[in-house]
Amino acid sequence: MTDYRAPIRDIVFALDNLAGLDNLCDFDAFGEIDRDTVVGVIEESGRFFEQVVAPLYRAADEGGGSKWNQDGTVTTPEGYIDAYRQYVDAGWGAVPFPQSYGGGGFPWISAIAMQEILTSADLSFSMGPLLTQGAIDMLLHHGSEEQKEVFLPKMVTGEWSGTMNLTEPEAGSDVGALRTKAVPHTDGSYRISGQKIFITFGEHDMTDQIVHLVLARTPDAPPGTKGISCFIVPKLLVNDDGSLGERNDVRCASIEHKMGIRASPTCVLSYGDDGDGAVGYLIGEENQGMRYMFTMMNNARLSVGVEGLSLSERAYQQALAYAVERKQGRAPGAPKGELSPIIDHPDVRRMLMTMRSTIEAMRGLLYIDAAGVDATRHADDIAVRSQADELVDLLTPMSKGWCTDMAVELTSLNIQIHGGMGFIEETGAAQLYRDARIPPIYEGTNGIQAMDLVARKLPMRGGAVMSDHLVRIRASADEVAGAEPQIADAVRAAADDLEAATTWLFEHGLTDIGSALAGATPYLRLASLATAGWVMAQQAEVATGLAAGASSEDDKRYYAAKVETARFFCTQIVPQTAGLVPAVCAGAAPIMGLSADDLASVPLA
Amino acid sequence: MTDYRAPIRDIVFALDNLAGLDNLCDFDAFGEIDRDTVVGVIEESGRFFEQVVAPLYRAADEGGGSKWNQDGTVTTPEGYIDAYRQYVDAGWGAVPFPQSYGGGGFPWISAIAMQEILTSADLSFSMGPLLTQGAIDMLLHHGSEEQKEVFLPKMVTGEWSGTMNLTEPEAGSDVGALRTKAVPHTDGSYRISGQKIFITFGEHDMTDQIVHLVLARTPDAPPGTKGISCFIVPKLLVNDDGSLGERNDVRCASIEHKMGIRASPTCVLSYGDDGDGAVGYLIGEENQGMRYMFTMMNNARLSVGVEGLSLSERAYQQALAYAVERKQGRAPGAPKGELSPIIDHPDVRRMLMTMRSTIEAMRGLLYIDAAGVDATRHADDIAVRSQADELVDLLTPMSKGWCTDMAVELTSLNIQIHGGMGFIEETGAAQLYRDARIPPIYEGTNGIQAMDLVARKLPMRGGAVMSDHLVRIRASADEVAGAEPQIADAVRAAADDLEAATTWLFEHGLTDIGSALAGATPYLRLASLATAGWVMAQQAEVATGLAAGASSEDDKRYYAAKVETARFFCTQIVPQTAGLVPAVCAGAAPIMGLSADDLASVPLA
Repeated sequence: MTDYRAPIRDIVFALDNLAGLDNLCDFDAFGEIDRDTVVGVIEESGRFFEQVVAPLYRAADEGGGSKWNQDGTVTTPEGYIDAYRQYVDAGWGAVPFPQSYGGGGFPWISAIAMQEILTSADLSFSMGPLLTQGAIDMLLHHGSEEQKEVFLPKMVTGEWSGTMNLTEPEAGSDVGALRTKAVPHTDGSYRISGQKIFITFGEHDMTDQIVHLVLARTPDAPPGTKGISCFIVPKLLVNDDGSLGERNDVRCASIEHKMGIRASPTCVLSYGDDGDGAVGYLIGEENQGMRYMFTMMNNARLSVGVEGLSLSERAYQQALAYAVERKQGRAPGAPKGELSPIIDHPDVRRMLMTMRSTIEAMRGLLYIDAAGVDATRHADDIAVRSQADELVDLLTPMSKGWCTDMAVELTSLNIQIHGGMGFIEETGAAQLYRDARIPPIYEGTNGIQAMDLVARKLPMRGGAVMSDHLVRIRASADEVAGAEPQIADAVRAAADDLEAATTWLFEHGLTDIGSALAGATPYLRLASLATAGWVMAQQAEVATGLAAGASSEDDKRYYAAKVETARFFCTQIVPQTAGLVPAVCAGAAPIMGLSADDLASVPLA
Repeated sequence: MTDYRAPIRDIVFALDNLAGLDNLCDFDAFGEIDRDTVVGVIEESGRFFEQVVAPLYRAADEGGGSKWNQDGTVTTPEGYIDAYRQYVDAGWGAVPFPQSYGGGGFPWISAIAMQEILTSADLSFSMGPLLTQGAIDMLLHHGSEEQKEVFLPKMVTGEWSGTMNLTEPEAGSDVGALRTKAVPHTDGSYRISGQKIFITFGEHDMTDQIVHLVLARTPDAPPGTKGISCFIVPKLLVNDDGSLGERNDVRCASIEHKMGIRASPTCVLSYGDDGDGAVGYLIGEENQGMRYMFTMMNNARLSVGVEGLSLSERAYQQALAYAVERKQGRAPGAPKGELSPIIDHPDVRRMLMTMRSTIEAMRGLLYIDAAGVDATRHADDIAVRSQADELVDLLTPMSKGWCTDMAVELTSLNIQIHGGMGFIEETGAAQLYRDARIPPIYEGTNGIQAMDLVARKLPMRGGAVMSDHLVRIRASADEVAGAEPQIADAVRAAADDLEAATTWLFEHGLTDIGSALAGATPYLRLASLATAGWVMAQQAEVATGLAAGASSEDDKRYYAAKVETARFFCTQIVPQTAGLVPAVCAGAAPIMGLSADDLASVPLA
């Protein structure tokens, strides 16, 4: 399990050939930064994450993860503090942020590629930097100049970490139900009191300072999501000279005992237990907190999708290594009396190909989505920006929902390939599987992603955003049809299925939201498979050309393999769309046919 | 999590209306035992498992499960010894065994229904009695009269437990590779030496005696599965008067640290460390061990399928209770400003309906399979026996493979319904999910089940066994067509898909086993879904009639709900077959297209 290797070549393949990294680097905003600079940073950081972070993963979990102490402090696993110090020293966290605050000014997609590797190295560890980046993003977009000057430079380096405080016991998916209070103080700040739960790295020993971004309600706030404001609540108050001052009134009351990501402390935070509240500083205007959150939501959800990719990639590398090593039985065609490595058994090969090809489709989807985020923000042409905006809106629920669902399935295949050994904790396959079960839940459950796709994204521009997408999918099939007719046929069939389901939703869902939502989950899967087919059709098309023009035998093999995985994925996995259309188009009747009362009360005995 | 209730009514519904319990009880072999006696025993044992065993489940896992001690003993979790003593006193383990050895003489299906409940109560705990029953079954069929007299009475009561010792480090799925030695001794017994791994309840503190059934090779045995013999190796030698004597030379060297079923000790057993081997007694003849194992395989695999059902049922009960209780957001149609219980959200309802309906389909399939086991052994008419034999052969890979795969998915839905709380160990949803990951692996991985279906079962009677099954599936659609045309259409379409895939396999698989095996896993899923559709079509047909004739409002609701779940399952889940046909019929090319070498060596960086 310490033999994870950053899949640099696959990452660069996706950046170059699917995400259009070259084009992105041409945006004025990125100045001198070109494709090679970006690739260089990814390679170098990849080596670092591989060597410094990846070896911590297994032991951090085995030791039980982060520990809460009676005095409210949290001790992270052995090695975390040191690895994090090296991470800060190297400046990896700063790469995608503006140079004005000490950042590297790189495209966001660089951060996504680095995140892929860091998360494969250790999901728990990666969550600290990830949350810090989210908090930086919020401050960059909505903080005041003063707030930026006080907090951003040290957060960009990673010397200070950041958190997002949304959830409360009664306010999970329904953020609008939150009750944490924020009372204005005479000095212009606020006093925050209440309890937040599920706060990732809400307390830890890797930085002195933790900058909490906290959603709360002011006294006269309207109910629901319209009455939520966002506050900066630093663990330690910051003196006028920028040095750290008094302890603010926020305490970690406990951490959760979780099935996975045990090394990532998931905290209960209490605000204002000792007095009239913790000192908080309003970001932007009152009651605009949810709007601010929404501007960063695509970004955050994309990153959670990347977690799905990262866990799957590490699981695949482990499964592949085991399948080459382990010998059992005789595969079809093997000489009599000879034991075969299990990679030669067709059923094991199917599992490996499923993992590998799905990972490639996920990576393509996520990096295309990430390129869209950069284009949305920085494209020089305003029309390109708004096109990118639509694409990102459409793809993000698939990036988050599908990639995290797939991670559950692919880490499960890793266990299955290991057989009984996969169920033994020492092997490490179990840890990846346990860790993989949380991304489908946080940052909007996958059910919420599905509803987002159906209820918010489909209606965009009267449905034209999805029709444009269908045109794109079909165009990719047309382009690959000459070289790979099977792929083209499969992707066209998937587009037809997606169109049929979409049409049904438009015809029925606009008049009956219940019916649309009832089919949302199978629709998300269907749309994701068709979109993944689009990604893989592009991969096949590009790789066919690259293989033909390859100058070395190694390159030829590499690109030919990319065509093979695309063919497997399109002919074996994508056709599952056909089995999903009926579930979308059945509407609410079969789902709601049994009333909640009947469902809950039909006697068991 | 202690509020599990044995779903007696659902169990009895399946026994009466799908498995034909009444008919079984008419077999001469069951004498005076009638349907009501069987139901009475299930009810009574259900209460016992619910009240005595179910409360142990959570704490046993929380405490870390069974513990291995330096002296080679194993300490089971608190409460296990006492609960097991009560289990023995009540005589629950004896129910399905012959009265001549102190059993109850009940049909095997009674044991399956009891196992469902016991396993829902605590999978880890249930594995002790389950393995004992397997060992009893082996001795009953293949032991000598003397062996039966010495061992069976105390195993039937449960005073002595039993184990099955197959796996070795280099012999997992490939049992034929095992190396444990058995050397004949002058007294007619054998001396066994070697190491076995993954031995469930191989050592524990719930009984004084443990009767190990051990596969080993005699000195002149042919290689592979044809050279395997089966031995009785008791932990304590048995004196002539039946009392327990000296310690045999078998020791528990360690137990595994597993992701789930932590309370079930999974042992490494060393035979013959202290001398020339542990004393073992040959069962039947030398080199016939695998043949004997095969005669019990359907039974054992059926029981593992039941584990899938049991975990799913407990997860469903937990999810349902939470969905009624937990309020978040506003469901479509709910009054403004009112929080809805999450059961009212269409996406949550879909998850609950998926769980409930799949559980009903699983239960129907497993109980029909179990009834087949009884008919195979005890039907008075020889033609009925051989028909049942074929049905059991065909259904068993689906019972084991599909039901355990579904348990992974359904326990995962339980977590998803709980949101963030589902990932916290205290909730208990995580434990069910962790436990559910092992049944797809043991007793023949699900890949092996799929290969068994394609390579052994399909060729039976030249393919006529599967054609007969298709006739059955279509007949069930015809019968329900009047009352439920949607169900009939869906089941017919699934039968068409199954026929198309089967035909392809016959046309290609007979000449190219690699192609057949490459599609085995999607074929198993496809066949299981079509078969589950057959089960649910029967359920809808029967329940429609029962609802019409119901004498109470409660009964009418109960049967009407059975029609609703059948309709959901057939229109939402069964149509997935359409998405699987291409994967079966693509053959080996897309799976084996990338050579093992390329797959393993294409450079990452």
